[in-house]
Amino acid sequence: MSKRMKICINTGGGDAPGLNAVIEAVTMAAYNRQWEVYGIKCGYTGLLNTDEIITLTPEKVNGIASVGGTILGTTNKGNPFMMPVCNAAGESELRDLSDRVMDNFRRLRFDALVAVGGDGSLDIAHRFAEKGMPVIGVPKTIDNDMGGTVITFGFDTAVSIATEAIDRLHSTAKSHDRVMVVEVMGRNAGFIALNSGISGNADVILIPEIPFEIDKICDKIMDNELHGHKYAIVVVAEGALPKGGDVISKGTGEAGRQHVVLGGIADYLSKEISRRTGKDSRSMVLGHLLRGGSPTTFDRLLSLRFGAAAVRAIEMGKFDHMVALHSPEIAMIPLGEALGIQKRVRPDGDVVLTGRDMGICFGD
Amino acid sequence: MSKRMKICINTGGGDAPGLNAVIEAVTMAAYNRQWEVYGIKCGYTGLLNTDEIITLTPEKVNGIASVGGTILGTTNKGNPFMMPVCNAAGESELRDLSDRVMDNFRRLRFDALVAVGGDGSLDIAHRFAEKGMPVIGVPKTIDNDMGGTVITFGFDTAVSIATEAIDRLHSTAKSHDRVMVVEVMGRNAGFIALNSGISGNADVILIPEIPFEIDKICDKIMDNELHGHKYAIVVVAEGALPKGGDVISKGTGEAGRQHVVLGGIADYLSKEISRRTGKDSRSMVLGHLLRGGSPTTFDRLLSLRFGAAAVRAIEMGKFDHMVALHSPEIAMIPLGEALGIQKRVRPDGDVVLTGRDMGICFGD
Amino acid sequence: MSKRMKICINTGGGDAPGLNAVIEAVTMAAYNRQWEVYGIKCGYTGLLNTDEIITLTPEKVNGIASVGGTILGTTNKGNPFMMPVCNAAGESELRDLSDRVMDNFRRLRFDALVAVGGDGSLDIAHRFAEKGMPVIGVPKTIDNDMGGTVITFGFDTAVSIATEAIDRLHSTAKSHDRVMVVEVMGRNAGFIALNSGISGNADVILIPEIPFEIDKICDKIMDNELHGHKYAIVVVAEGALPKGGDVISKGTGEAGRQHVVLGGIADYLSKEISRRTGKDSRSMVLGHLLRGGSPTTFDRLLSLRFGAAAVRAIEMGKFDHMVALHSPEIAMIPLGEALGIQKRVRPDGDVVLTGRDMGICFGD
Amino acid sequence: MSKRMKICINTGGGDAPGLNAVIEAVTMAAYNRQWEVYGIKCGYTGLLNTDEIITLTPEKVNGIASVGGTILGTTNKGNPFMMPVCNAAGESELRDLSDRVMDNFRRLRFDALVAVGGDGSLDIAHRFAEKGMPVIGVPKTIDNDMGGTVITFGFDTAVSIATEAIDRLHSTAKSHDRVMVVEVMGRNAGFIALNSGISGNADVILIPEIPFEIDKICDKIMDNELHGHKYAIVVVAEGALPKGGDVISKGTGEAGRQHVVLGGIADYLSKEISRRTGKDSRSMVLGHLLRGGSPTTFDRLLSLRFGAAAVRAIEMGKFDHMVALHSPEIAMIPLGEALGIQKRVRPDGDVVLTGRDMGICFGD
Repeated sequence: MSKRMKICINTGGGDAPGLNAVIEAVTMAAYNRQWEVYGIKCGYTGLLNTDEIITLTPEKVNGIASVGGTILGTTNKGNPFMMPVCNAAGESELRDLSDRVMDNFRRLRFDALVAVGGDGSLDIAHRFAEKGMPVIGVPKTIDNDMGGTVITFGFDTAVSIATEAIDRLHSTAKSHDRVMVVEVMGRNAGFIALNSGISGNADVILIPEIPFEIDKICDKIMDNELHGHKYAIVVVAEGALPKGGDVISKGTGEAGRQHVVLGGIADYLSKEISRRTGKDSRSMVLGHLLRGGSPTTFDRLLSLRFGAAAVRAIEMGKFDHMVALHSPEIAMIPLGEALGIQKRVRPDGDVVLTGRDMGICFGD
Repeated sequence: MSKRMKICINTGGGDAPGLNAVIEAVTMAAYNRQWEVYGIKCGYTGLLNTDEIITLTPEKVNGIASVGGTILGTTNKGNPFMMPVCNAAGESELRDLSDRVMDNFRRLRFDALVAVGGDGSLDIAHRFAEKGMPVIGVPKTIDNDMGGTVITFGFDTAVSIATEAIDRLHSTAKSHDRVMVVEVMGRNAGFIALNSGISGNADVILIPEIPFEIDKICDKIMDNELHGHKYAIVVVAEGALPKGGDVISKGTGEAGRQHVVLGGIADYLSKEISRRTGKDSRSMVLGHLLRGGSPTTFDRLLSLRFGAAAVRAIEMGKFDHMVALHSPEIAMIPLGEALGIQKRVRPDGDVVLTGRDMGICFGD
Repeated sequence: MSKRMKICINTGGGDAPGLNAVIEAVTMAAYNRQWEVYGIKCGYTGLLNTDEIITLTPEKVNGIASVGGTILGTTNKGNPFMMPVCNAAGESELRDLSDRVMDNFRRLRFDALVAVGGDGSLDIAHRFAEKGMPVIGVPKTIDNDMGGTVITFGFDTAVSIATEAIDRLHSTAKSHDRVMVVEVMGRNAGFIALNSGISGNADVILIPEIPFEIDKICDKIMDNELHGHKYAIVVVAEGALPKGGDVISKGTGEAGRQHVVLGGIADYLSKEISRRTGKDSRSMVLGHLLRGGSPTTFDRLLSLRFGAAAVRAIEMGKFDHMVALHSPEIAMIPLGEALGIQKRVRPDGDVVLTGRDMGICFGD
Repeated sequence: MSKRMKICINTGGGDAPGLNAVIEAVTMAAYNRQWEVYGIKCGYTGLLNTDEIITLTPEKVNGIASVGGTILGTTNKGNPFMMPVCNAAGESELRDLSDRVMDNFRRLRFDALVAVGGDGSLDIAHRFAEKGMPVIGVPKTIDNDMGGTVITFGFDTAVSIATEAIDRLHSTAKSHDRVMVVEVMGRNAGFIALNSGISGNADVILIPEIPFEIDKICDKIMDNELHGHKYAIVVVAEGALPKGGDVISKGTGEAGRQHVVLGGIADYLSKEISRRTGKDSRSMVLGHLLRGGSPTTFDRLLSLRFGAAAVRAIEMGKFDHMVALHSPEIAMIPLGEALGIQKRVRPDGDVVLTGRDMGICFGD
């Protein structure tokens, strides 16, 4: 701790509960080492336009761990390796501005960058590391689909909000003998749908990893009906897909496809289930609700641990690495390794088995 | 309290947080008077088909006050004064089955009915009262648009859930410099939008009682932009309407109208605001989330008070009346009087003034 | 709105959820009239020592409505009419410094003060009004014991937190067949105990307005036992008192009295109930939990309405008045009138009757 | 799955959020295998007195996952290997009734027992396994001090409730420039204090694993004071101990010791800090609040996974084992191994380091 370091931090990609907690921990851990800390606004934009850099102090970050969003903004103006710029002819073209970022980083005498972001942002971080920037990554994904870490912050909050919403929808569905289709985030991985669906006592869970047949869903709903359970909750990840893929258009013609495009998977399923079972059905898209606002206690703590660990990693000079949770401890893994892995729900994992044991239909 | 009464209760119309609490209080208040209590399932259906009647006991209702929905169901099969029945020719026709309801009520020796419902259900209750049934009404409306009472249960819960959702959407909107349009319930009255919009620190609130001009909304958003506030939260009641009514189609052609039909007011506004301001914009419909699940403490207590007051009203023989909150006490008002009034937001009331004082734009 | 006013605001007495919301609304309502607003720190201290005055701007107050506490602090150094000061001999004596407050108020050219506080703080405000200061009061009391208004902010939050705690204690009490005594705030008025006890499904509620006999409580608990309900929740206001007042010492001797002093009413009741019924019993004091943290949506809105109404009252020149809720609208009542009334639970009011109807024992 | 199994489940020891979720999952997983499931009430009592056995069906367990407590009760009448019984002379003596338990278990033709409990209950389960009973353990501890599993259910809920309480206490402490000492559960392990203290932005955290010096705490509080941070939150585990152990009595004499006995560690610290720093100080014991009520989504899911895994373990005949979380998957470990380990906070683990990095004082 002999040298007085000068570090900076940015947050990239979509909003996630816990970003501010990472910023608070990085700032405090640096401050308690008597380092200087700076916040780069809007992803890498602040390293292109250095007006967008702010000093971070204990006063500025005190208590923000429990506040949603990020005080640094996440609105990337683009990837600095392929930045859309306006050329002499007035046309937009992509240009590699990464050297300008490197120059600014060195000119400002930064000793390290803590890059908080999803696989896109961390891929950029890794490329800067290869150009010589001392970078530590902090993984961020609501969907829990990043490799190398058991879990990242934001996911527990998203699952909790979704479960609470499903809890609320139960009572109305039950009072009205209705099918309720709830769409949650998850384009490539169904973790949010899976976890909130099981916690929320869903009847059907549809995820990208397990292609569904709509008849299986209707079978389940009508089977329940025979057992006096006259309503149903269907939780569907936005990226859930029918088996074969052409099933959706069957019986609904091209209009069917269009419905999917216009109203999303939840809207499509709601209409199709209603058509096939004759039951009243509604859809609800939770989308934006899941990524904003105050993190759960779990996510708050995990974010703080990630932030503090990033500073300790700088101290140890362990660059081009990413902090990760290897329960119950924090580990450091090479960025290059982590970026290669995309996590998906294991159809034979214990969580899916738990769902099946509970009698939940996965549409397969 | 000399006579051992035999009373029944039904719940009609849409789901609302607090229905079970009314049932618990009615059951307990009757039980503690050594009366018998019965639950009529599915609105008035249980008085047409008496299989749909259950006994209510302290064991059955213990603790349900905090549980959403209604253990009696709300799925009306229709209005008994105009019930769709299948005639000899196999066609559906509307028939007045109210006498059969009256017969069953007398045959079962009920001394009173507690009818919990919105203006539709209470109107039916009132008509039965006119036919001689001893009825006490308990008003229920998420939208808070029923007259004769300062407030009814379910509204505080709906406003709370909406506000919590708006809180969450703030952080994402802010992190991404985005306009977020949030649609809440309220076809004729804008109470939910108004109260949640002010509590949730919205920039724009649109309600049926104050017709809006879309340009005023865009002015507000761009004005904020100039002051460095680069995102906006627009809270809109589902029944909000543009001034004149033809404004919507302006500049968007018939496709514009169609958009409104397809995606609802939130979707329309989101697209139109984005088109006119050039800002990124998203919409979110909270709809079904607001009427289900556990009631707030406020609604729990109000429902319990309403239920107990209904039993005391039976004891006093005050039939064809409705319990109501005349803060801080409970009052009894004639059903006939209450049904004539539909409450709407007063554009010059102090809550709207509070919104204006806070700098919120109402689109006028 | 021709004159550009210069107003100030202070917050006095104990913490209450909603104080910051009042400050936000006053600031925004003044800002939107192009007035200047100043915050007086620590009650009236800031008018004695003018270093303790800050400017309030939209930036400073944006979003604080949902944050607990008060950015102005509530740590009064004392009543300016009887301020403890150190005299020449080095002894502390009480001195009337109200003229210095008046001088500073005029010297700083303030046009009005919004005084937010309980009866103590508002009494001081009223005395300043009598000395010529243009004052508007905003009532604040967790306990809901202030007259002239149906309700004040903070109370709904306190009742909600208490109810949530009681909900949690139910499951443990039930799993262990245990008596749980929960103490809530309420020295003179039992509103919090009453409302949270009924909402939280308590078996026994003890409030200052209804003196209790400990044998009645034990009768209720053992009666429940016979009906298979082997646990009990007792909610007690800190100011609850036994009938006669000498009952407590009976059978426990002086040690009994001492117990009361050492451990408070909850501790005493827990031990005494256990001694008399032979049941396992525990106590829990919720105290400080009830007055801190984020306000409920209800309290947020009410505080914002109070704050905005205070600014409108200044505009109308309606000084020496207090804003109040006369549901559903805001009213202005003379401070002198409001201060004379202390609200207490009406033992024959509908809320107590609801409790009795539910079978709850009040110890009488 | 050829054989139709007949299994039973009991829950022992203290209440924990998630017990009902384990019961729901075990019941559903058994039901979906067409097995019979029975609930043994009150720990092992139901195997001594077989009246205390109930059938478990999907109807009985539907939705209980989100409800606190346990429908089977946890009130052990004692350890069947050393059960207090009344002998012929009317005196109480300890007798080994384990053979009667074994007899009943066989007589009722049970194929397996799922024993949910802490180390005490699982130790009994292990001893029955050694006598030949096919037992699967499910670990339960609020304190997170059980070995062999990364975490157990109930802990996340306890930490969340504690953090929420600390959040609330912040605002009041700040408004009043006060020291607030919050006591949480944790006799041998400080996990709850550590995690909630860091998440809740405490200034001081005291845990059994790191003996404290009271002067260090006061130094921290007065140091903060110099930096304008005039209030402090001290989170203390009930089992926290001073260095040496005789420090407490220093300066307070025997009365000091007595204080500790009378009021607990929080009360003692509050008084001692106030005496040494001259600051206003209060204490709050969260105790019973932390173990009751609805589980967090995290705990709900973990409990369901544990319950379903226990049934799969029975299917595989993996008896005398305990289900455990080896993130991200469920593992089965021998009961004998797990029972030997007591987990404690590692003073050099990353969570403590995170606390130190944030500037939190651990009193050492």
